[in-house]
Amino acid sequence: MSTAGQVIKCKDAVAWEAGKPLSIEEVEVAPPQKHEVRVKILFTSLCHTDVYFWEAKGQNTLFPRIFGHEAGGVVESVGEGVTDLKPGDHVLPIFTGECKECPHCLSEESNMCDLLRINNDRGGMIHDGKPRFSKDGKPIYHFLGTSTFKEYTVLHVGQVAKINPEAPLDKVFVLSCGMSTGFGATVNVAKPKKGQSVAVFGLGAVGLAAAEGARVSGASRIIGIDLNPNRFEEAKKFGCTEFVNPKDHDKPVQEMTGGGVDRSVECTGSIQAMISAFECVHDGWGVAVLVGVPSRDDAFKTSPMNFLNERTLKGTFFGNYKPRSDIPGVVEKYIKKELELDKFITHSIPFWEINKAFDYMLAGEGLRCVVRMDA
Amino acid sequence: MSTAGQVIKCKDAVAWEAGKPLSIEEVEVAPPQKHEVRVKILFTSLCHTDVYFWEAKGQNTLFPRIFGHEAGGVVESVGEGVTDLKPGDHVLPIFTGECKECPHCLSEESNMCDLLRINNDRGGMIHDGKPRFSKDGKPIYHFLGTSTFKEYTVLHVGQVAKINPEAPLDKVFVLSCGMSTGFGATVNVAKPKKGQSVAVFGLGAVGLAAAEGARVSGASRIIGIDLNPNRFEEAKKFGCTEFVNPKDHDKPVQEMTGGGVDRSVECTGSIQAMISAFECVHDGWGVAVLVGVPSRDDAFKTSPMNFLNERTLKGTFFGNYKPRSDIPGVVEKYIKKELELDKFITHSIPFWEINKAFDYMLAGEGLRCVVRMDA
Repeated sequence: MSTAGQVIKCKDAVAWEAGKPLSIEEVEVAPPQKHEVRVKILFTSLCHTDVYFWEAKGQNTLFPRIFGHEAGGVVESVGEGVTDLKPGDHVLPIFTGECKECPHCLSEESNMCDLLRINNDRGGMIHDGKPRFSKDGKPIYHFLGTSTFKEYTVLHVGQVAKINPEAPLDKVFVLSCGMSTGFGATVNVAKPKKGQSVAVFGLGAVGLAAAEGARVSGASRIIGIDLNPNRFEEAKKFGCTEFVNPKDHDKPVQEMTGGGVDRSVECTGSIQAMISAFECVHDGWGVAVLVGVPSRDDAFKTSPMNFLNERTLKGTFFGNYKPRSDIPGVVEKYIKKELELDKFITHSIPFWEINKAFDYMLAGEGLRCVVRMDA
Repeated sequence: MSTAGQVIKCKDAVAWEAGKPLSIEEVEVAPPQKHEVRVKILFTSLCHTDVYFWEAKGQNTLFPRIFGHEAGGVVESVGEGVTDLKPGDHVLPIFTGECKECPHCLSEESNMCDLLRINNDRGGMIHDGKPRFSKDGKPIYHFLGTSTFKEYTVLHVGQVAKINPEAPLDKVFVLSCGMSTGFGATVNVAKPKKGQSVAVFGLGAVGLAAAEGARVSGASRIIGIDLNPNRFEEAKKFGCTEFVNPKDHDKPVQEMTGGGVDRSVECTGSIQAMISAFECVHDGWGVAVLVGVPSRDDAFKTSPMNFLNERTLKGTFFGNYKPRSDIPGVVEKYIKKELELDKFITHSIPFWEINKAFDYMLAGEGLRCVVRMDA
């Protein structure tokens, strides 16, 4: 029997307060309104951004809230005006959207949609400002417009990428956030040429996805940089050929490469790493790409001569991918084996154990832990 | 009678001391050695870099010296091993070279030749370290490997661009430095698309050449920014459609354009202008290009979020043109009327009045003053 148009009761992992373990509860999910879709989540995982807002250190954050934004699922029903999605479609929720009408969506170069750009503060839907989730009549807030730590969620259609139903959702769901961010930073923005050298700052999941992008691009050297030497062994699987611990060196990358790398990708968010990532690219042609999100008051500072000697510095957001237009094509790359994803998934747990995913991340253990909603 | 292989006596404008008027004197010019050519200069002009080193404020500079690097002439004779130039070829001396063998010359992206990159300190030729100029047996030093304030000069073949002899040398000689630097910064590096907006910081000759690049690219708006409002009227000839005096505004470019320009080109060298040029480009796709040379201790400082919101910052040197490979093609653009140069030449004087060119520049009068060697 169809549930379209009905309120659905389902299991959610509710964050009642900052920093406290999530609680699995039965929550009511209203039907999708205009330009919205309701999606049955099948697989999800935890990303640093969830933890950052869950911890809510020194900031006002909405609670109770449903976190989660990296996920894969199937459309359950669609609201008014939704024409390009239908029940049964396989989809990835994306934390930033694509309205297809604003100057950013109309520009070939930008993916920073004016309407649906990432918004940490919003707790309801754009259509009426209200959440679609409630328990005992009291609202539970959305997070990033995705809220995937639940069996059914509601999203703006502009935040839903429709993908090939033949793709294994339990693998490609990681393209919903971190893997696309890192991979796209390399292939769409740094764009190393075959045989060039690439330095990757930070060997977490995003950095390793950037390394995967360098491997796929045919980079001859992929230099992994991290303060934690335990990551070097794992990074070999992602194509890293050499490793640098900044604690041990002063200007190691420049020395290792006779003047600098051809491309660098910064995935830590540390301002010092950003500056190093820029200054370690070769004069004449070097391109550095910033991915990691800095602290609010950080200042990027360098000698302007570093630019005048023909270095380029760019930043990127979600790997410069337009969520709806481009992500289906990245999924196809996985199907065609042009891109490896399985190696990013190091842990697997059932939904009711979701707090373990927080433990793994806080301990720096593994890369992605798939949370199986049906398990 | 051929002068090849002979010492030539000719008239030079010698700088005996820092900041003192040049003195027209008879100087001896030795024949070109290995990989060198001797060129009869026909037209030259003064550029800020000449003045900067002539003034020699707070630095050790070689004297006596022959300044000058923006010029056009004809090959008189060639030294050993020179195969791609012959007497009679029309050429532009270039202050930075192209050896065609180093990693930079072999890279499609760089023009910063390892062997012949601009060198302010060198007073002799690379072959033997010695100058080819002397008076009464005492050496007179070279400047930038060009020294064009003289009737005959000697250059490394890698610093000589052979151009179409049908091009009027008294016009295209300005492509030897400033005009190529500004024009190339726009067309090769900022690369505005047809219909986009471009901001140009600094409306001197280089900035106006950047504006000319924007006009040729089909920019819809060209916003000229200068502290001197007297420059706005002249800038209209170069395609500028709007003007901003930073003294009158806080963030005018962002306000004028609803979020920022598509491209900006910084031609002043002021660190504050560099920061403004970067911060005034649109998020999502804006590209800022630095051309002006900063002071030694300047620091470029901005919030890293300005990069993460998908802005790009690049620097360029000589408009990213490879001197020998690319400049002949820019001359062809002038011949085909795809690029205007005549409007840059605002004054004309005979060689013996060369000190007037310094007066014009120090007074901020006009753009380029052609110095006619044969007049």
